[in-house]
Amino acid sequence: MMTTLFLEDFTPGQRFVGRTRIRMDEHSVKAFASEFDPQPFHLDAGAASSSIFRGLAASGWHTAAITMRLLVDSELRPAGGIVGAGFDELRWPRPVRPGDELRVQSEVLEVRPSRSRPQQGLIKVRTDTLNQHGEIVQTSVGNLVVPCRSAPPPPTA
Amino acid sequence: MMTTLFLEDFTPGQRFVGRTRIRMDEHSVKAFASEFDPQPFHLDAGAASSSIFRGLAASGWHTAAITMRLLVDSELRPAGGIVGAGFDELRWPRPVRPGDELRVQSEVLEVRPSRSRPQQGLIKVRTDTLNQHGEIVQTSVGNLVVPCRSAPPPPTA
Repeated sequence: MMTTLFLEDFTPGQRFVGRTRIRMDEHSVKAFASEFDPQPFHLDAGAASSSIFRGLAASGWHTAAITMRLLVDSELRPAGGIVGAGFDELRWPRPVRPGDELRVQSEVLEVRPSRSRPQQGLIKVRTDTLNQHGEIVQTSVGNLVVPCRSAPPPPTA
Repeated sequence: MMTTLFLEDFTPGQRFVGRTRIRMDEHSVKAFASEFDPQPFHLDAGAASSSIFRGLAASGWHTAAITMRLLVDSELRPAGGIVGAGFDELRWPRPVRPGDELRVQSEVLEVRPSRSRPQQGLIKVRTDTLNQHGEIVQTSVGNLVVPCRSAPPPPTA
């Protein structure tokens, strides 16, 4: 059973580890790139060898999408779902190669109640995506909308 | 014929408009979400109606992937391809609904030669993704690696 978490359950420094691993095979790397990022270094090993990537590399957006899937499968489980208001940072420090197995780990950086909407707040979360060697292939800092367990009472007259 | 652009060809304030439009139909919204972001508000109209999105909404990562496709099809065509070093910002100010037709427009914010690698530099680009009503559904600020037309001569002894 997974625990559903409300804003009150989050604190800075909390870590969430994803147990799922997803393998990026050559077929899925090329299929994603064909649809969304059809550039030679994501599609063809020969062309990729002379590119900046020096070999076939997954689209960063494929890595980002797989990271989302790994997060949904992880223990980071806010009530109402994983709803990103946006990201302050998204980087791909090294390429993802066909055959790489990815996993995620997240850390809560900030917890902020909303001033304008007392029934919810934002948590700022750093998420690292790692390959099978423990190397970071994506790092992001995102802001998630999280509902409060109990809305504060209405102001007295 | 498309023009291939080197670092020397970019200047702050340049704008690139994508002529391609991509329609986000319900099937593709659900198919992407099933694979990468399997949460009820991206998969089921009934569950979505009582969610924060108040109706079926595309995964933000689907919008991001489609934006990449629109960029690859646009006139923003650096020599060596569109290679993102990372993003300083990525936001989804309003949901993408099934039936929305998306397009992109980009503006160059900064052009910086690399100090450590004289054969390349970085351009900072804001890209807005708009729906058929001209409303921004995604905005990002990314840093792209762009090669120089000619590497500077080696230092004289």
